[in-house]
Amino acid sequence: MELSKIKSPADFRGASIEELADLCRQLREAFLVKLSNHGGHVGPNLGLVEATVALHYVFNTPEDKIVFDVSHQTYIHKMLTGRVQAFLDPAKYDDVTGYTAPSESDYDLFTIGHTSTAVSLAGGMAKARDLLGQKYNVVALVGDGSLSGGEAFEGLDEGATLGSNFIVVVNDNQMSIAENHGGLYSGLARLRESDGTASDNYFKALGYDYLYVAEGNDLASLIDAFRKVKDADHPVVVHLNTCKGLGYKPAEEHKERFHWSMPFDLATGELKDQSQSESYDEIFAREMLAQMKADPAVCVLTAGTPGAIAFGPQQRAEAGKQFIDVGIAEQEAAAMASGIAKAGGRPCFGVVSSFLQRAYDQLSQDIAINNTPVVLNIFYGTLLGMNDVTHLGWFDIALVANIPGWVYLAPTNVEEYLSMQRWAMKQTAHPVAIRIPGGSVQHATAPVQSDWSLLNKYQIVRDGADVAIIGAGTFLPLAEQTADLLKASGINATVINPRYLSGLDEQMLHGLRAAHRLVVTIEDGVLEGGFGEKIARYYGTTDMKVACYGLAKVFKDRYDYRSLLEANRLTAPQIAEDITAALR
Amino acid sequence: MELSKIKSPADFRGASIEELADLCRQLREAFLVKLSNHGGHVGPNLGLVEATVALHYVFNTPEDKIVFDVSHQTYIHKMLTGRVQAFLDPAKYDDVTGYTAPSESDYDLFTIGHTSTAVSLAGGMAKARDLLGQKYNVVALVGDGSLSGGEAFEGLDEGATLGSNFIVVVNDNQMSIAENHGGLYSGLARLRESDGTASDNYFKALGYDYLYVAEGNDLASLIDAFRKVKDADHPVVVHLNTCKGLGYKPAEEHKERFHWSMPFDLATGELKDQSQSESYDEIFAREMLAQMKADPAVCVLTAGTPGAIAFGPQQRAEAGKQFIDVGIAEQEAAAMASGIAKAGGRPCFGVVSSFLQRAYDQLSQDIAINNTPVVLNIFYGTLLGMNDVTHLGWFDIALVANIPGWVYLAPTNVEEYLSMQRWAMKQTAHPVAIRIPGGSVQHATAPVQSDWSLLNKYQIVRDGADVAIIGAGTFLPLAEQTADLLKASGINATVINPRYLSGLDEQMLHGLRAAHRLVVTIEDGVLEGGFGEKIARYYGTTDMKVACYGLAKVFKDRYDYRSLLEANRLTAPQIAEDITAALR
Repeated sequence: MELSKIKSPADFRGASIEELADLCRQLREAFLVKLSNHGGHVGPNLGLVEATVALHYVFNTPEDKIVFDVSHQTYIHKMLTGRVQAFLDPAKYDDVTGYTAPSESDYDLFTIGHTSTAVSLAGGMAKARDLLGQKYNVVALVGDGSLSGGEAFEGLDEGATLGSNFIVVVNDNQMSIAENHGGLYSGLARLRESDGTASDNYFKALGYDYLYVAEGNDLASLIDAFRKVKDADHPVVVHLNTCKGLGYKPAEEHKERFHWSMPFDLATGELKDQSQSESYDEIFAREMLAQMKADPAVCVLTAGTPGAIAFGPQQRAEAGKQFIDVGIAEQEAAAMASGIAKAGGRPCFGVVSSFLQRAYDQLSQDIAINNTPVVLNIFYGTLLGMNDVTHLGWFDIALVANIPGWVYLAPTNVEEYLSMQRWAMKQTAHPVAIRIPGGSVQHATAPVQSDWSLLNKYQIVRDGADVAIIGAGTFLPLAEQTADLLKASGINATVINPRYLSGLDEQMLHGLRAAHRLVVTIEDGVLEGGFGEKIARYYGTTDMKVACYGLAKVFKDRYDYRSLLEANRLTAPQIAEDITAALR
Repeated sequence: MELSKIKSPADFRGASIEELADLCRQLREAFLVKLSNHGGHVGPNLGLVEATVALHYVFNTPEDKIVFDVSHQTYIHKMLTGRVQAFLDPAKYDDVTGYTAPSESDYDLFTIGHTSTAVSLAGGMAKARDLLGQKYNVVALVGDGSLSGGEAFEGLDEGATLGSNFIVVVNDNQMSIAENHGGLYSGLARLRESDGTASDNYFKALGYDYLYVAEGNDLASLIDAFRKVKDADHPVVVHLNTCKGLGYKPAEEHKERFHWSMPFDLATGELKDQSQSESYDEIFAREMLAQMKADPAVCVLTAGTPGAIAFGPQQRAEAGKQFIDVGIAEQEAAAMASGIAKAGGRPCFGVVSSFLQRAYDQLSQDIAINNTPVVLNIFYGTLLGMNDVTHLGWFDIALVANIPGWVYLAPTNVEEYLSMQRWAMKQTAHPVAIRIPGGSVQHATAPVQSDWSLLNKYQIVRDGADVAIIGAGTFLPLAEQTADLLKASGINATVINPRYLSGLDEQMLHGLRAAHRLVVTIEDGVLEGGFGEKIARYYGTTDMKVACYGLAKVFKDRYDYRSLLEANRLTAPQIAEDITAALR
């Protein structure tokens, strides 16, 4: 059986175990060749090769439905469902996304990138199936750390009561991105150690029938287990003990390093591009480790993404109890931070913009209403960062800045960032969020103030007339480039660094009216609900014209950032052209 | 021991069990007299009388910290911590809020109104205590249905790993607001039936030491249990079997009716005000029951608040399997609805505006990115509804309308609402949210269209010149009243019903420029991130003036809505005055 000829699971449903084992070997080989050249999620997929083959072998997909959680675990699934060329042919590597995508295949049910969602989504499908009187299996494949997310718990809790076919396959690879965290995982460990027989079984406690598969990378065991639960008339959990990174020694030995990787040398596992450029995550980690040493009350929280904030094993060891990884559980990280701040600790939650969305209510209720001095550092809140539709960093301005009480700061360079972060961690008057800029790391060209407690004071970085360009965060350099271009056509633009995204400098804005006819805002996010609209509203009843630049409210997947900038007229020549026309 | 003389728990820490029992009797009596005259949360507090006394008796509050979940369970706590006059003296009834409030007392640690937050907040306090090398007990009191919320699970999961004193008291009254839902609660039932000895103990599965108190309303049992866990050096759960409504027969027998009540006759339990006015929740329930009968694919979801959407026991029985109460678990309700829609069901999630905040990520990822035709009906999204700071309905426009893909509709009367709801439930092109108007129920004075698929078409309800007033949802009548006032001063205003909150009718807006100099927007929510700002941005580069009316971005607690309207110039005379001045 040749991998390149597999068009759908039907092509291997009649195969023998030996043929399937050979198929797994081919899958791993092709996968590793692509990943070593292209990068992507290595470990999670290697651990699931056999389970994915066995699922499609036993279940009658796509009539039977499999919903994959944290769908970065679906590379093997894609190879088995008509998309193998995207793994064999380098020219087609980018024909598939890194997540399930219904636009690619009927075997993909949802576009999923955030974790902990599959049980809820699959539970809904099972419910609709029952309402409509249909018959098919509904399977949710969860794991790789996502059980710690509240949505996964809520899905399990409700799913247990469906009273009909509902199969939850738990991929227990003993890891999240880094190690797992939380009491739940000790319970899973006890189950693994007891061959599934330990008392106080989390899944049984929620009402599930339970089946343990000790050899979660053994085809025969897997096929046997899936056959047992196929067509079950009640909710059942199949707990697979798998090995993250299996079949590639460097990934087995360095599970965290190989959770996701840039292209690497297949022989050694070394990254192909060893160049190191300055980055905000490392600046953050260095700064926070220094703050921790100076003050035992300082602590850093992450919700399962220590790598995104450069807290690798070494930094975590150095921080000790002052570093808290709550696992994939953003609600907990935010609410716990509020408790820490209330009791005199100085917490900083370092979080990826897209994942912060999961803690909106905690930012509002647990933090803002209680005015606890929690500090958020928001990473990848930029269109220049992650470009998968499920990981966009475009929405956090609207999310954070519109909640009363939050001070949302937008530094434009390292020195401004450090100054803001030091102030934020010392003060106790407000919850403060800091938006890490996107793009290449900039440095200050003038001294930076150290006290940010006089809120909403914008800074004029270049004094001019007729037009004032307010460039927020990442896009202050774009405002300055625009001003440079305008200068060539005789327009002497004012350039402003607003620094605060959560409020208006009404005094400065009022003052601009004397010598300016047009205010331009540029922000690194969607326009709707964002920063520029507040400026537009402020000037609404005056003669001042306002033009807002930012992203249109449309989801984009795997976009080219240069094209996106141009399509939204977010380049200096385009903005300069518009300004020139408006002032004419 | 006289209740009226209790200033703090120190006043009863030396008392005998008999004296405490007498105190409980006095507490219940005073509580019931106030509640029958004032209204509030009846059942949850009656069930916790003994536990609250025992907690303050055993623990050295306020040095020891007790964080109360769903803090509507804290009326008794307030009576014991210096605020008893607010329960004994009718003139002082409103001196205390219905939730914990740090502004009232050092015994109140957080302002908490949403559920499922206490374990996370308390876990944070325990963490800070340990970082700072301090010693005190940290207790989280949870229950009354809140264990089904994902945040509670995340808090338990992380709290189990704290490795130091952390006491979680579970108030298991076998109820949420209505009955409990989810597999977890079957597990709790097994524990109750086995005197805490059943296998597959949810709390032990997460790593907690565990203590069961069969008689959760017996002072001696409670005091004994709390003494056992006081100063514990590890995380422990104390599971109390309590009786919701205990000591008031109508509340014991009709637990759902007495979860929260308007003023009632103490002798009979009957509501004092039996008048029935037309309400949107009942209109919703009637409509959805009819739709369910006509189509088995139609279903209604609630996240633990069936009463808010008028699905009482009778309506639930009528709906059968087409009604889904997932318990307090908004993430699940939203994501499950997406799964239902994907598999051909027609789900409508009826949700209170303030609680919808807990499902932001699901609205974005599970629904919008997947473009599943989920229908949301958002209740109490109005400043004319709930006025506790933890339950404000001011933020949902910014929350929903700024997510790509959502169609957010704002009906202004019953007929418009029903037409939108019928269209939303039939179409499969978009996720659609409908914002139930606040204030008294209005009726259409002209025929209403039935097809809303041509998005973002605003309606001119009165044709005029110079000024156009766009009154969204609840506030269309306010726009019309303003226009009436203007007419008296010779200004013939255009009045527009935008109907869509999630997009602009650019054609109409452009057209207004011919005969209008000013556009006024009026919305029932905060201005920042809201509807009016989108209009202001649209006109930013034109000569059109725009004035936006809505709420300032500040939290308010127990506000008087008339004062709030006036303070934000949201009355017809004020707006008319501003318009007259602007047009002069």
